[in-house]
Amino acid sequence: MNRKASVVWRGNLRDGAGTLSTESGVLRDTDYSFRARFEKGNGKDGNGKDGNGKDGNGTNLEELIAASLGGCFSMTLSDELERAGLHPERIETTAIARLEESKGSWTLTRIELEVRAKIPNANQNHFIDAALAAKTNSPMARLLNTNISMIAHLDT
Amino acid sequence: MNRKASVVWRGNLRDGAGTLSTESGVLRDTDYSFRARFEKGNGKDGNGKDGNGKDGNGTNLEELIAASLGGCFSMTLSDELERAGLHPERIETTAIARLEESKGSWTLTRIELEVRAKIPNANQNHFIDAALAAKTNSPMARLLNTNISMIAHLDT
Repeated sequence: MNRKASVVWRGNLRDGAGTLSTESGVLRDTDYSFRARFEKGNGKDGNGKDGNGKDGNGTNLEELIAASLGGCFSMTLSDELERAGLHPERIETTAIARLEESKGSWTLTRIELEVRAKIPNANQNHFIDAALAAKTNSPMARLLNTNISMIAHLDT
Repeated sequence: MNRKASVVWRGNLRDGAGTLSTESGVLRDTDYSFRARFEKGNGKDGNGKDGNGKDGNGTNLEELIAASLGGCFSMTLSDELERAGLHPERIETTAIARLEESKGSWTLTRIELEVRAKIPNANQNHFIDAALAAKTNSPMARLLNTNISMIAHLDT
């Protein structure tokens, strides 16, 4: 199975800007830039503009990675719970990717997962076992060469 | 620097569904599901519905990874070219992520990059050297534990 994305980048690294599109159309000429990625937050520069100087919906690549891992972890956790005979109602996960610079080179050094789940009849041990398995074995956890930490809460 | 995403998953693996949101708002309660990810294309099932049964804009996690790598490669290539004294006008990259199942487990086994660039005064050797460096050294290439291949064209 193949999944596709397309990118256009114009200009140099610091003053140039690019757009991202995915096959599903969820990203469609979505802006990204060096400034939005490495200098300012939330895909906007200090003036609330994205990398193309527009008031657009800019992204940064690291939040897409955080979404991929958080999404993959959550669906894998639902599977692990089901294998233990449990039926999760709701799994809420936040994923925070940390980007650090060392010697002029940026690295995504860590992703912190925080999960809160509502699972009828689950006890803490079942839940933690399933969460640890998902943290280690999900396809995205295996794909990403970074440190992954986790905090897990079972709502009662 | 921290980049954040939030996920809500409801139900079990195969019949459940989730939503993804990122800090920038580019993903905002964006649907994803097992079926859309592993069974059908483009975030839709066979009836054109996304994982939540709506005619929504579903995504799959692998196209987000393809976008991240393609985006990171393209901006890193612009930097490599600049270091060689070149000024890229336009860099177009497609990234295709291949997802394969083995013994019930899914793995993103390969990403194929195809890049086409317009760079005044560049020759083929400069371009290929820069493209190979970006393919190996970009932050996302270092992050992803998968095979990355590349085809590179210099437009004249």
